[in-house]
Amino acid sequence: MLRPGATIGILGGGQLGRMTALAAAELGLKCHVFTPERDCPAAEVCARVTVAPYEDAAALEAFARGVDVVTYEFENVPAETARIVSAHTVLRPGARALATTQDRLAEKSFVAGLGLPTAPFAGIDSLADLEAALARLGRPAVLKTRRFGYDGKGQVKIAEGMDAAAAFEAIGRQPAILEGFVSFAREVSVVAARGEDGAVAAFDVCENAHRNHILDVTTVPASIAPATEKAALRAAAAIGAALDYVGVFTVEMFIVGGAGGGAESIVVNEIAPRVHNSGHWTIEGAETSQFEQHVRAICGWPLGSPARMGDVTMTNLIGTDADRWREILAEPGARLHLYGKAEARPGRKMGHVTRVTARS
Amino acid sequence: MLRPGATIGILGGGQLGRMTALAAAELGLKCHVFTPERDCPAAEVCARVTVAPYEDAAALEAFARGVDVVTYEFENVPAETARIVSAHTVLRPGARALATTQDRLAEKSFVAGLGLPTAPFAGIDSLADLEAALARLGRPAVLKTRRFGYDGKGQVKIAEGMDAAAAFEAIGRQPAILEGFVSFAREVSVVAARGEDGAVAAFDVCENAHRNHILDVTTVPASIAPATEKAALRAAAAIGAALDYVGVFTVEMFIVGGAGGGAESIVVNEIAPRVHNSGHWTIEGAETSQFEQHVRAICGWPLGSPARMGDVTMTNLIGTDADRWREILAEPGARLHLYGKAEARPGRKMGHVTRVTARS
Repeated sequence: MLRPGATIGILGGGQLGRMTALAAAELGLKCHVFTPERDCPAAEVCARVTVAPYEDAAALEAFARGVDVVTYEFENVPAETARIVSAHTVLRPGARALATTQDRLAEKSFVAGLGLPTAPFAGIDSLADLEAALARLGRPAVLKTRRFGYDGKGQVKIAEGMDAAAAFEAIGRQPAILEGFVSFAREVSVVAARGEDGAVAAFDVCENAHRNHILDVTTVPASIAPATEKAALRAAAAIGAALDYVGVFTVEMFIVGGAGGGAESIVVNEIAPRVHNSGHWTIEGAETSQFEQHVRAICGWPLGSPARMGDVTMTNLIGTDADRWREILAEPGARLHLYGKAEARPGRKMGHVTRVTARS
Repeated sequence: MLRPGATIGILGGGQLGRMTALAAAELGLKCHVFTPERDCPAAEVCARVTVAPYEDAAALEAFARGVDVVTYEFENVPAETARIVSAHTVLRPGARALATTQDRLAEKSFVAGLGLPTAPFAGIDSLADLEAALARLGRPAVLKTRRFGYDGKGQVKIAEGMDAAAAFEAIGRQPAILEGFVSFAREVSVVAARGEDGAVAAFDVCENAHRNHILDVTTVPASIAPATEKAALRAAAAIGAALDYVGVFTVEMFIVGGAGGGAESIVVNEIAPRVHNSGHWTIEGAETSQFEQHVRAICGWPLGSPARMGDVTMTNLIGTDADRWREILAEPGARLHLYGKAEARPGRKMGHVTRVTARS
């Protein structure tokens, strides 16, 4: 168990690292950010910053030796980076979580192995694999690289009549996974923390709407039946336990059926071994934020209450959306968050705004 | 009006600067702290730090030129420091607020000049002044240095039979003020923000209990009549307007009378031209925290809603009180704040804990 005054090392300097550092500061902890980019959101709020590539073994070793625990704000931490850090200090979440979630095929196999529902899937190493899998799973289907995909990158939807070879070309003929198309009613996520002692504290299931493959609005509570919510929370807890996880993690799920479409149920889509954009609402909307919860967990501290404070919406400010900052500041009850990014490129997450109202 | 991405300069590196910097970061602003002490709470959460004495004119000029607005976290900013800063950028709150609140005699005269009730007082420059004032104001009375007092420092109570010369000696024969003793029922404070446009947003009046002259517990709402609350808020607004104030300020008041003691009324005790320990409850207890409110005001932004979220207590963690951090972390609903100070000296403010419950 760490003590106040200890230093948390964070791999990655983006907004998730920034908000984690802010939560750590409230608890009297210092942060040391390791980032390849000098001008990054997290560097502005940290006690110390190392600017170096993730492949710089000497810089990583010095970083790891100077902190009390290391965490990361993105799942694509190179395995060798994780190995070097782990040789000198505690890495949380650990190597198993990284290995499982960095590879979409390993992740899907892991989830299916727990007996949890996923989309039908097949590993793809060649065009022949892809053609066989398409014949088995049908169309439309989604072809995704096994590694390094996020926000819709590294994936292509294969519709009726589309050429399989062209699709394989489009993702660079990399090792891939083909996923059968899931006709879902809505997308939800479970953001949960798991402590050193195995205790799990999940936030209420939230519902996510995307625009251009990027999260647009998160609404809590999700419009799902109580039994579905229970199933979602059980699935997340099972995943956390199987990964022997310490920290906050997120499970994205599809809700299928419901209303006229038969019984409502969950399909596990993706695991993120970190705090998540769909959990930003917890800063004002829950008794403990996902960032504080992550800090508590990786420090070996007791988890806080994840209880919800009201009905909540969180809206991302993407690109020039953030130009509306003044209007948002003047809106009663709107809570503005900006990440300190200088340039508002299209598709770039610049900030978010949270609105909490009385529970319905 | 500043834009997100602008830099706020903060004179002083203590916990008030730290919490201001954390609030600024949430709004996408950078902070540059100017502090004489390298290892200070605010330095850990800022984009930039200048370590130099407040008398270092060259360092002050470079600091002021590199930021978009300067504020301070303590009222004893030397006049020459304020002058140098003001020559190169905007200082908020301005020189009038500093000059008035740095000098207890000027402050009391200013308040009395607004027609607001204060303790009876007299300026003291000599033992003869003191003896004459004691004859007029009676005993007990409190002798305070005009400058540089806080948390009960620089003051002595003169009771029946106590030697006036010894009291004057005890405060170093400095220019002083003698204040007649006020027999008060309770101590309260108004923390309020005043915007560039003159708009005032006051938090609900809070009640303060001290231990060894240091704030111990703040409770909101205060146990005062609605008419008294109105009078307190009116007094604060009048003070803010007369100082042409921009930012958050705090007015400490005594409540006299009430219950068996006749009509309840306020006596203005002290003005702090800054965020205040008795406003820490607003971080979780109000829709906008005092720190965010101060940042909004000095940036020329619209003020946020000061509405209260529930019934609140804020308890300071003084010295070794902070050793209870683990117990507090495990307490449902308790919100722990630690300031990152390494050494828990007696009387040192190490952190605080806020508890919000449903409105009674």
